[in-house]
Amino acid sequence: MGYTIAEKIIKAHLVDGEMVKGQEIGLKIDQTLTQDATGTMAYLEFEAMGVKRVKTEKSVAYIDHNTLQSGFENADDHRFIGSVAKKHGIYFSRPGNGICHQVQLERFAVPGKTLIGSDSHTPTAGGIGMFACGAGGLDVAVAMGGGAYYITMPQMVRINLTGKLNPWVSAKDVILEVLRILSVKGGVGKVIEYGGEGVKTLSVPERATITNMGAELGATTSIFPSDEITREFLKAQGREQDWSEVKPDADAVYDETYDIDLSALKPLAACPHSPDNIKSIEELSGQKVDQVCIGSCTNSSYLDMMKVAHILKGKKVHPDVSLAIAPGSKQVLNMLALNGALADLIGAGARILESACGPCIGMGQSPNSKGISLRTFNRNFEGRSGTKDAGVYLVSPETAAASALTGVFTDPTTLGEMPTIPMPEAFLINDNMVEPPVDEKDMDSVVILRGPNIKPFPTTTPLDETIACDVILKVGDNITTDHIMPAGAKILPYRSNIPHLSQYCFAVCDETFPERAKAAGKGIIIGGSNYGQGSSREHAALVPLYLGIKAVVVKSFARIHKQNLINAGILPLTFANEADYDAVSQGDALELKDVRKSIENGEDIVLTDKTTGKEIPVICDLSGRAKDILLAGGLLNYTKEQSEK
Amino acid sequence: MGYTIAEKIIKAHLVDGEMVKGQEIGLKIDQTLTQDATGTMAYLEFEAMGVKRVKTEKSVAYIDHNTLQSGFENADDHRFIGSVAKKHGIYFSRPGNGICHQVQLERFAVPGKTLIGSDSHTPTAGGIGMFACGAGGLDVAVAMGGGAYYITMPQMVRINLTGKLNPWVSAKDVILEVLRILSVKGGVGKVIEYGGEGVKTLSVPERATITNMGAELGATTSIFPSDEITREFLKAQGREQDWSEVKPDADAVYDETYDIDLSALKPLAACPHSPDNIKSIEELSGQKVDQVCIGSCTNSSYLDMMKVAHILKGKKVHPDVSLAIAPGSKQVLNMLALNGALADLIGAGARILESACGPCIGMGQSPNSKGISLRTFNRNFEGRSGTKDAGVYLVSPETAAASALTGVFTDPTTLGEMPTIPMPEAFLINDNMVEPPVDEKDMDSVVILRGPNIKPFPTTTPLDETIACDVILKVGDNITTDHIMPAGAKILPYRSNIPHLSQYCFAVCDETFPERAKAAGKGIIIGGSNYGQGSSREHAALVPLYLGIKAVVVKSFARIHKQNLINAGILPLTFANEADYDAVSQGDALELKDVRKSIENGEDIVLTDKTTGKEIPVICDLSGRAKDILLAGGLLNYTKEQSEK
Repeated sequence: MGYTIAEKIIKAHLVDGEMVKGQEIGLKIDQTLTQDATGTMAYLEFEAMGVKRVKTEKSVAYIDHNTLQSGFENADDHRFIGSVAKKHGIYFSRPGNGICHQVQLERFAVPGKTLIGSDSHTPTAGGIGMFACGAGGLDVAVAMGGGAYYITMPQMVRINLTGKLNPWVSAKDVILEVLRILSVKGGVGKVIEYGGEGVKTLSVPERATITNMGAELGATTSIFPSDEITREFLKAQGREQDWSEVKPDADAVYDETYDIDLSALKPLAACPHSPDNIKSIEELSGQKVDQVCIGSCTNSSYLDMMKVAHILKGKKVHPDVSLAIAPGSKQVLNMLALNGALADLIGAGARILESACGPCIGMGQSPNSKGISLRTFNRNFEGRSGTKDAGVYLVSPETAAASALTGVFTDPTTLGEMPTIPMPEAFLINDNMVEPPVDEKDMDSVVILRGPNIKPFPTTTPLDETIACDVILKVGDNITTDHIMPAGAKILPYRSNIPHLSQYCFAVCDETFPERAKAAGKGIIIGGSNYGQGSSREHAALVPLYLGIKAVVVKSFARIHKQNLINAGILPLTFANEADYDAVSQGDALELKDVRKSIENGEDIVLTDKTTGKEIPVICDLSGRAKDILLAGGLLNYTKEQSEK
Repeated sequence: MGYTIAEKIIKAHLVDGEMVKGQEIGLKIDQTLTQDATGTMAYLEFEAMGVKRVKTEKSVAYIDHNTLQSGFENADDHRFIGSVAKKHGIYFSRPGNGICHQVQLERFAVPGKTLIGSDSHTPTAGGIGMFACGAGGLDVAVAMGGGAYYITMPQMVRINLTGKLNPWVSAKDVILEVLRILSVKGGVGKVIEYGGEGVKTLSVPERATITNMGAELGATTSIFPSDEITREFLKAQGREQDWSEVKPDADAVYDETYDIDLSALKPLAACPHSPDNIKSIEELSGQKVDQVCIGSCTNSSYLDMMKVAHILKGKKVHPDVSLAIAPGSKQVLNMLALNGALADLIGAGARILESACGPCIGMGQSPNSKGISLRTFNRNFEGRSGTKDAGVYLVSPETAAASALTGVFTDPTTLGEMPTIPMPEAFLINDNMVEPPVDEKDMDSVVILRGPNIKPFPTTTPLDETIACDVILKVGDNITTDHIMPAGAKILPYRSNIPHLSQYCFAVCDETFPERAKAAGKGIIIGGSNYGQGSSREHAALVPLYLGIKAVVVKSFARIHKQNLINAGILPLTFANEADYDAVSQGDALELKDVRKSIENGEDIVLTDKTTGKEIPVICDLSGRAKDILLAGGLLNYTKEQSEK
């Protein structure tokens, strides 16, 4: 039985477990990337691991999220990340050099290799034939330290592309069609592989648009083969030596297969407020538009920008529309500035923003109230734009540019003949905004620049034999990570400051919690079912850790948050009998005896409520590796121990 | 006796008063401008006046301050301003078209005419020979309605320029030298006029840099003659017909005269935290730099940018420096994108920001903590950058660019031969981001777009015959407008929402004030000496008006705030005997009888403290016009009454 592309790469990188679908496997990681909103914490974690030098083939630290800099915190984070990178063997992509995924594709991604990044759109590099996954900051830190990255062995989905896109229909419309077919849950636990004759009609940046937004399917990752077109792209980037062919075996077996005829596709839009709420532009045609934003890691390549420039050249942006354009990288921006295309964009009345994530993550360009905003981005969740009642439509650059001129949804296929915009034979290569690290022998000369908002990662200790403390907080069902650790403009600048963040922990449920937890010194949280659902933010475990939380006892956990608790060294327990939830009250004194021994030996754990005298059976359901992580006091300690062996 | 330039323009525009220094005069205003941070309020005021069509020769509404758009409020303000402009005969410069003063100079400013703008750097247009003053929003609204602008007839200062600037020394160094000589208080009540042979060696944008930063002298305005160089500039802007010669009479008399030998100047810097804290770059040479920002209404012209591009071309920004560049207008940006200079900036590693005020007003690019930031801007007040402990140095573009490459303060005169960068014979003219208004006959078809954060201007009523109410607040000496109406990132987005702003009124002194004032329905404030000092923000009068304040009784007023109170229809009174301040307590019931009659007849006013029974003599020191404004219930009502006559 042959292998799929993903299976081939997994096989070549498998360091733990077996390639049995649904089972945990550990992969060797060749490359890592971080962006700055998650990066500061990842590097604090990396520092806490005590590893001197990254053990990957290439690790890159990007600054692309917090580039508006409405306070000193962001510039301090940039300098911190830059200095850690310089010291520990990591390349540093300075603010202004572009969006991590765009730059990674241009300058670093390598077919057949593995990449994890502390950003959910890391699968962009799948466009070049790389196995690339979004991951938590601690996972990235561990991978930089040489540790494996653990995933559940995914199912394999094949999307077979036939035909060729019609003029003015583009890669964005392909992934919108995939989202229409599969929905935002359709990719969970799966790798989406693209194949078929249609692949040859798509350039690498177009493929990357498709794998990028595969994140919205919930997929583990998405991937294209690496072929002659990939070789040409790498050659034009001066990196032909990085090329290798990557393709599935002829007899590869897929769990699901879908066919998409590229020639049958029309321009599409994801309507508010979900990336899978798809309609054709034809259906929306003529509806009024207030704002158009072009850019983001999904659609900011040279080709995308050249098409937009062609559409705008000599024309004028509609008076009622604000058109903002952020080219994806310094390379793209510089090429546009040299070939006149940037002048065409400016001439038409586009607002040129810095090459960064910008409006895609709600950093600026919030639409007017009730505004209709067409964006070439990847997410249109309610309020993500910064304007709660705005309606955001995700579209192709072609649709965006055409609509910016008319002020209404406009099908770009009405634009007449499409010009042929060739891929450049040679991209403009100038990596002077990527700072290389110092040699290992010089690392002691590098001073880490730690601004006053950057606080050390909270330290953990190995699991106690006995945990005896009070219930500091009892909450109900469906508590999200947004309840545990709220986000938003007020709190986001403090992502590198766990002590400061801790003031807001559970603020939605009980504002007195942080103070009470600190006063007690240690404590236990009692929760209902589906505890920790929602975003994957690791801060929802790190902040309770900082506040002295030793165990969380609930009816049931959401998967990622349970892993984050384990990584933070907090004991995740479930009631053997859900009814016992009612037997424990906030303030009760609890005791968990012989915890280490019970976990080591796989024995039952008994929780004693010293206040009521009741004995309550609880379950500690963990894989072998998870047990070891907990006993070591979290993933950081575990990794340190492993590396010392 | 001959006239100075300013006196000639004043004479030609005098509609009220006599040209006696120190006396109030009223000027006919030919042009107005607004920016968006003050503009929304100015247009709410204009709307409240009920004037259909602006009566100026040209009024332009710019969007350049709140362009980051971290919430819906800013985009809503832009749309509101755009729709008011369209309806009432005002030209609308869309976001992205550039900084108001730069665009005004390029496209609209006319020698010999008068301009007021709701921005303190409006004197930029003095570089083209215009009499241009910064003013409050209500003053601008009144001028748009055809009303006169009132100033105190200023003293005349002549600065005689001789010689020619050495290579790499520039206009910024000239105004820094003037600030060194005169200090930030040296221009109060004065017009600074430039003359002498040295004037001929300076281009219009260079002259505009000098008049722009004349605002930091506290001057009423600064002005250059309009000569052949001015004609060339206007010709290159396609506006030769706007040119006329403007020069002083040979026997003009100045109150003060200073001589500056341009050839003796060196590159200078204004050191933290005042624009008049001048040192030479030579003295600072070698000190480490963390950030460099180039742009702002002071230094973002085509010439400035071309010099910077020349310095950066083929080089690399120092790894420890973040270099941000915001070209001043779409015209400048577009020309740089066409001639390759923008590619040079990008290639060197500059971060290109939207053409707007940006970091100069603390909108983004806050330096790292304790960071040293070199900026080509005009103000370096503590904390203005958004980073409280940063050290901001104001320098020329040449010094900024040279230092960005080395990472330390670098004297640009060490750069070797300076290239000759000629003024373009023809600027790129494309006004497609300036929307003209509709014809008057079509104005009813324009719907004003009023977002939910935009609330009506508070209404006023003619002064009551008797004012009887309680003392809602008693404060001490030196209360600033920042005490009365705080600013900052939390409050600034609400500048169009007086009801919302009112929650923060006097929050620094007494958080219960807004609630107590609202509950009382009307009230009086008692203050000490120098009440209302600091910024000129009219919100410090409009918000108390909204909260029902009828009179403010103090030991003494700051000049601008007193005018703002009068404009808002709030009675400004001073104690005849300062010691009586101690006799009035917060909560006392006060009564002012026969107020209208006393003011009309110039009689004394007596304040009765009904709580103590004490009678307290107070003074109402007002010019005839100010009396009429108060009796009418504020400047808006007064202006409406006048226009109906």
